[in-house]
Amino acid sequence: MTESTQFSAVDRNRVKRVPERGQYEKEDVYAILDAALICHVAFIQDDQPFVIPTLHARDGDRLLLHGATTSRLIKHVAAGNEVSIAVTLVDGLVLARSVFHHSVNYRSAVIFGRGRQLDDAGKMDALARFTEKLVPGRWDDARLPNSTELKATAVVAVPIDLASAKVRTGGPKDDAEDYALPVWAGVVPMTTRYLPPVTDPAMTTDAPVPPYVTDLIRMRNGG
Amino acid sequence: MTESTQFSAVDRNRVKRVPERGQYEKEDVYAILDAALICHVAFIQDDQPFVIPTLHARDGDRLLLHGATTSRLIKHVAAGNEVSIAVTLVDGLVLARSVFHHSVNYRSAVIFGRGRQLDDAGKMDALARFTEKLVPGRWDDARLPNSTELKATAVVAVPIDLASAKVRTGGPKDDAEDYALPVWAGVVPMTTRYLPPVTDPAMTTDAPVPPYVTDLIRMRNGG
Repeated sequence: MTESTQFSAVDRNRVKRVPERGQYEKEDVYAILDAALICHVAFIQDDQPFVIPTLHARDGDRLLLHGATTSRLIKHVAAGNEVSIAVTLVDGLVLARSVFHHSVNYRSAVIFGRGRQLDDAGKMDALARFTEKLVPGRWDDARLPNSTELKATAVVAVPIDLASAKVRTGGPKDDAEDYALPVWAGVVPMTTRYLPPVTDPAMTTDAPVPPYVTDLIRMRNGG
Repeated sequence: MTESTQFSAVDRNRVKRVPERGQYEKEDVYAILDAALICHVAFIQDDQPFVIPTLHARDGDRLLLHGATTSRLIKHVAAGNEVSIAVTLVDGLVLARSVFHHSVNYRSAVIFGRGRQLDDAGKMDALARFTEKLVPGRWDDARLPNSTELKATAVVAVPIDLASAKVRTGGPKDDAEDYALPVWAGVVPMTTRYLPPVTDPAMTTDAPVPPYVTDLIRMRNGG
């Protein structure tokens, strides 16, 4: 049996506005999930919608969330309730000649699913993924979680059964008759930059800024 | 009657995890809403949670969303259904000596409310707010919306009756016995930068990059 490289587009995940911006290839959706540091999790409690930002990581076809075992969000997801999770990266301001066609360039992904809680072995692996996503190389340097900390932490995995991405790239698109207007049009690209590391003033040892931190900053800043 | 400068903290908006990070002053919540380009709107349809990213603007105690009149999200909000809207800004990676205490610095705000659709006069004012939030000065330069475009655009206002902010700043906090570990600890600050503007190759006039665009980039980049 060959696994599909695409998500089915059903009513729930189909991109409705500007459908040509919709993407359903797993590879494309996962690239956006991996590029984003945080996600927004939507859920229903007492018939009310809630949305909470949190860090995420990915393990194959599962999105991982973590938090204190006492966290309302984590308990709610662990109980198997439906969630919708979005990540969004803004890549630039799009300035058209007409106000109407102003826009932003972005990459967004939305997934739908029901989570389940991981056991201790799965938890340790997941925490390594979270740590390495934040700062590759950190897991082998920092003090690893002890049993008390593991007990205080819950990790939930949400199988990514249904998902889609929506992406806008490129310059402004104006109405034909507006191209003659003497108005500058173009894109102001945006990007996330890492600034020089700030050493904790409470350090009692002279451990230098690790090379993997310097590398992360250089790579992130495109240097 | 003096209007309160604070949101009441009730079950729905009270910050539950790490309550000392919670903020309820309107001024603090609004500053976070204004600093963010996009928000994530959560809503319920057919008993399922959904979350969609979109641009937002603010008009006093109301959050504004806009979109095509045919947009599912906008129609749903315009119908007066409950929504929860979050904005989140990530300010840095927090590297503690222990994996357990790793974190990020962030500013987030969540609001709750029910929207209503604006009429044509309100719509024009709102579109000016959206445009000026994206690029201050642009409204007086670009071609303004005509009646066809106004008809195709819907704007909803969500009164910000209930809201809260959650903020983490500063360095890592480790367990007392971990301060002796020879592990570098500190913060890697993150920020959004604007890159040099990319002029639309389809420009047919020689209108230069406007000063308000150059100013925006310089101010955003802290120059």
